[in-house]
Amino acid sequence: VIDFRSDNTHGASPEILEALTRAAAGTMTSYGGDEITARVRERCRELFEHDVEVFPVLTGTAGNALALASMTPPWGTVLCHEDAHIQRDELGAPEFYTHGAKLLTIAGEDGKLRAEDLPRDASCISVTQATEAGTVYTPDELRAIAALGLPMHMDGARFANALVGLECSAADLTWRAGVDVLVFGGTKNGAMAAELIVVFRKELADAIAPRWHRGGHRLSKMRFLSAQFEAYLTDDLWLRNARRANAVAQRLARGLDVIRPVQANVVFVRFEPRVSSALRAEGFAFHEWPIFGPDAVRLVCAFGTSDADADALLAAVKRLT
Amino acid sequence: VIDFRSDNTHGASPEILEALTRAAAGTMTSYGGDEITARVRERCRELFEHDVEVFPVLTGTAGNALALASMTPPWGTVLCHEDAHIQRDELGAPEFYTHGAKLLTIAGEDGKLRAEDLPRDASCISVTQATEAGTVYTPDELRAIAALGLPMHMDGARFANALVGLECSAADLTWRAGVDVLVFGGTKNGAMAAELIVVFRKELADAIAPRWHRGGHRLSKMRFLSAQFEAYLTDDLWLRNARRANAVAQRLARGLDVIRPVQANVVFVRFEPRVSSALRAEGFAFHEWPIFGPDAVRLVCAFGTSDADADALLAAVKRLT
Amino acid sequence: VIDFRSDNTHGASPEILEALTRAAAGTMTSYGGDEITARVRERCRELFEHDVEVFPVLTGTAGNALALASMTPPWGTVLCHEDAHIQRDELGAPEFYTHGAKLLTIAGEDGKLRAEDLPRDASCISVTQATEAGTVYTPDELRAIAALGLPMHMDGARFANALVGLECSAADLTWRAGVDVLVFGGTKNGAMAAELIVVFRKELADAIAPRWHRGGHRLSKMRFLSAQFEAYLTDDLWLRNARRANAVAQRLARGLDVIRPVQANVVFVRFEPRVSSALRAEGFAFHEWPIFGPDAVRLVCAFGTSDADADALLAAVKRLT
Amino acid sequence: VIDFRSDNTHGASPEILEALTRAAAGTMTSYGGDEITARVRERCRELFEHDVEVFPVLTGTAGNALALASMTPPWGTVLCHEDAHIQRDELGAPEFYTHGAKLLTIAGEDGKLRAEDLPRDASCISVTQATEAGTVYTPDELRAIAALGLPMHMDGARFANALVGLECSAADLTWRAGVDVLVFGGTKNGAMAAELIVVFRKELADAIAPRWHRGGHRLSKMRFLSAQFEAYLTDDLWLRNARRANAVAQRLARGLDVIRPVQANVVFVRFEPRVSSALRAEGFAFHEWPIFGPDAVRLVCAFGTSDADADALLAAVKRLT
Repeated sequence: VIDFRSDNTHGASPEILEALTRAAAGTMTSYGGDEITARVRERCRELFEHDVEVFPVLTGTAGNALALASMTPPWGTVLCHEDAHIQRDELGAPEFYTHGAKLLTIAGEDGKLRAEDLPRDASCISVTQATEAGTVYTPDELRAIAALGLPMHMDGARFANALVGLECSAADLTWRAGVDVLVFGGTKNGAMAAELIVVFRKELADAIAPRWHRGGHRLSKMRFLSAQFEAYLTDDLWLRNARRANAVAQRLARGLDVIRPVQANVVFVRFEPRVSSALRAEGFAFHEWPIFGPDAVRLVCAFGTSDADADALLAAVKRLT
Repeated sequence: VIDFRSDNTHGASPEILEALTRAAAGTMTSYGGDEITARVRERCRELFEHDVEVFPVLTGTAGNALALASMTPPWGTVLCHEDAHIQRDELGAPEFYTHGAKLLTIAGEDGKLRAEDLPRDASCISVTQATEAGTVYTPDELRAIAALGLPMHMDGARFANALVGLECSAADLTWRAGVDVLVFGGTKNGAMAAELIVVFRKELADAIAPRWHRGGHRLSKMRFLSAQFEAYLTDDLWLRNARRANAVAQRLARGLDVIRPVQANVVFVRFEPRVSSALRAEGFAFHEWPIFGPDAVRLVCAFGTSDADADALLAAVKRLT
Repeated sequence: VIDFRSDNTHGASPEILEALTRAAAGTMTSYGGDEITARVRERCRELFEHDVEVFPVLTGTAGNALALASMTPPWGTVLCHEDAHIQRDELGAPEFYTHGAKLLTIAGEDGKLRAEDLPRDASCISVTQATEAGTVYTPDELRAIAALGLPMHMDGARFANALVGLECSAADLTWRAGVDVLVFGGTKNGAMAAELIVVFRKELADAIAPRWHRGGHRLSKMRFLSAQFEAYLTDDLWLRNARRANAVAQRLARGLDVIRPVQANVVFVRFEPRVSSALRAEGFAFHEWPIFGPDAVRLVCAFGTSDADADALLAAVKRLT
Repeated sequence: VIDFRSDNTHGASPEILEALTRAAAGTMTSYGGDEITARVRERCRELFEHDVEVFPVLTGTAGNALALASMTPPWGTVLCHEDAHIQRDELGAPEFYTHGAKLLTIAGEDGKLRAEDLPRDASCISVTQATEAGTVYTPDELRAIAALGLPMHMDGARFANALVGLECSAADLTWRAGVDVLVFGGTKNGAMAAELIVVFRKELADAIAPRWHRGGHRLSKMRFLSAQFEAYLTDDLWLRNARRANAVAQRLARGLDVIRPVQANVVFVRFEPRVSSALRAEGFAFHEWPIFGPDAVRLVCAFGTSDADADALLAAVKRLT
């Protein structure tokens, strides 16, 4: 099988696994009091050039929901794009963790919210970076949204992919552009299961900490979660993995009629049903994406997708059409 | 440091780490549709001699809360021991996942509920195996509680330690004794972070599945959680680890004046403050346990605790008293 | 002041107040075990020609939220019109009582959902009768929506106004058209504060009863709530009040350029700001209604609005334009 | 029937009903913007000699739960007596409104908490005045509890009965003794259905207001709720009603062997089953109270209970024993 279904059908980078093995030695304080977690916090402070607080979690769903619960009261409203993962794919996780806040969904081209379309009487705004349409927000676009004056959450499941496309710093793409809490994704980009809630405003951290614990997301052997993030941020593993994935996506984009701009590692095209079937029969795996119209298909390139995988697909498509 | 603080200050068994490395190869269906997860389900059906459903989770807190949420409505009542982890240590996780059910705490010697002390008008009962006092319920004791006719949840964070002490089968200690949902612990006994909700009544599984997802506990790369459990159950790793821990606990018990029966891997003693301080100064680590009275101290033996560790402690105590 | 702000700025019908005074005599079983509540249940069974269960509540917000909580799990979705009261005006009451279900809002002309616009993978549907745009659903329109096969809730804050406009029976407009739970409004139409959750499917009643109690909506002196409903349904008070209100609305409609069809007791028009100001200066009270566009204004006629009130407004508007 | 079952089996004082009839005239701003509600706020500021904020609600359950939700986070703990109404009779209303806070119940003679029995690491304390055992807290006893430094909620369902027994001022019995929020009961003492959340610390009011609305407790025709409270506080109706009820209770206490001190309007005795049956056969109604031991019975005197009612019971008991 050549698998373009999702970044999370891929395994994990060897560096991540080696880090886990190293982390297994000896005893350490549990629940996050260990030295690896402390080093990750320090490393993030350097990377983001800001006195951040961090909460390691296992899933993006947990990270997003915990972040949002710090930014809206139960009777508040969260603005998000109508295709946002928090709206479509999390079975009400934000509503659960916020105790019933409302997601107010907004339409927007290429998966992006635009400042001018947003009401001002909400509790907070959630953006996805890179978006569910495979596009990215520039720092200027984020700043325009932040200028509304509402707290901003960034679902950064593909933050690395967005960053390497934009060639800006982690600080430029977050707090300097008005982001208050980032859910910094590791899982989709080479980690085993590791996301980091990065909090740029200290008072929000106080609202996350108890929810993190009672939500069952505070690992007793936290070292194993933190170790993944330490490896992820060492020797630019996160950037290298993302660059590779993005490059393969560009390779695909050059050979296909894309229906959304390709700015990260996800490519949207239309395949006639006949072509889709034939490709699947040849061993290619991918998901249909009906919200982008008839015959729309999503092709995700991950850190584990090779140029050869892309070329095989391109050749097959060429042959079939 | 010689560390008796908790089973979760220890790392992970090499078999677990090797399994993770093996599991990292290739792409697999995400969110639990992979073959490793399927094998774990099968393996559990053999082990428990029952057509169980399983939900892998990362923490015992999540496992317990999700299990309880399938067994009580929001206006219901959960009976548990006054020292239960779900009451004392989870910051309201059961209340969060059940949307506000009440824990009704009951006193009971040696950390155990007794059937005759329990009201009958509750929604369900929660027992801990081994208990927070380091004791175990026999199948007969469980059956007596189950005879009340209420659904029963077992917090099995130390299930393996209880089982090897009792020398009975996994089925005898669960559904045959009236348990409806077991949270089968791996983390404290050699896994990295892996607990398994084992459901013996199918209709409860339907109530767990959506909560598992919206609670943010359904890993996208589920294979990495399931692989831990597969290794845990292979070649009796779980039993070997538990036997080792229990044996060290017995070694300690033979040399100390214990204040609770030692039936698993946890030992409670009293150390005069002078002795505690001296031991700490020599590099021994352990927690005070004030709910068991003045000077009470908890000593936890884990899969990684050696006979030499125990002997060093015994010698130091002897010297100091 | 001549007050067109809302039906709830008006007081209560004398018959309602007399019924309260009668109900005050003697002692009665509390919490709904009294004979007046029993008579209301019987009266509703006759009126709706169905073996209904009823729950008296004090506010429509409570009634709607309790009804919806019986029709969707916490992870479910409720379909409603984008202008629905449950979405715009209840500060998240449905989300609170359902423990976090999602309202999925649908656009639709004249405040109405149309069957063909509705997704089928939701938990339930909520319609408002009469709608927030002052229009009414016919039994046929409701049946078309019910044909989707989802449970249906009717927010009947102005149920009486809808019914007298349609000249059909209470049964035709509810369960025969596919409605499973009606929140039968009394407050806006002459009661002091009285709404009745009318349940047409018994199993939903079991899900409402405990939420009704723990939400704090089960009055100890229930007789005072039930007595209002008994008077409301006696000698057609509810129909007489609604007919009067609707007739005044038609009187207004004949003299103004309405921007929505007038099918109940609410009239929407546009008044230039100059006209609005002048009318207010002359003592007319009404609310702007910006979601219906610039200069839109809502005029509500209630049981207490007289023909003279309408004529005074019409004369003033004529003079000013 | 001569009814000693509860204060809420009685109707309402004529002054309350007259006030409702007066309040029905004309139109008023809805949702609490009316002048009657404003006058009640002012009247409470005089009565409590403090700049209070007030929220009228229909039930004590709602009042208590809303008050507690302003005083504890979802992961917090509320200390209360093991017999407290919030623990035993509200089907989890506090857990629902607080989103899952824990009630930690404490034993205590005569239904009262004592300062020395209370842990200090809770979120807030709830006391009932008069208690469920028919006793009252003195201002000194309250002050001792308040000295722990935790916010204090007072369930004042029978506040009037407590106050007239103690002969102190409303201020002395609330904020001067450390109470932060009082749920000031009207229903049990002559109102139809009216409780007032009286908030002595402004910041708590901000946390109550949105919950009050989304809980469905903010009446549109608020005037009808406020009018009851206005009448209740006019010409000392509340004190006159409570004095009458307490006096009848004392009359009973003088003729019976009470098993709890009678300090308000509730009397506890033991009646042999034979006596209970005979009394019921003669038309006396009362509830058994098994948590106070075998044959325990509760006799509640209300504003509507006469000396003749008490004398009839005393004569019957005398005759039967």
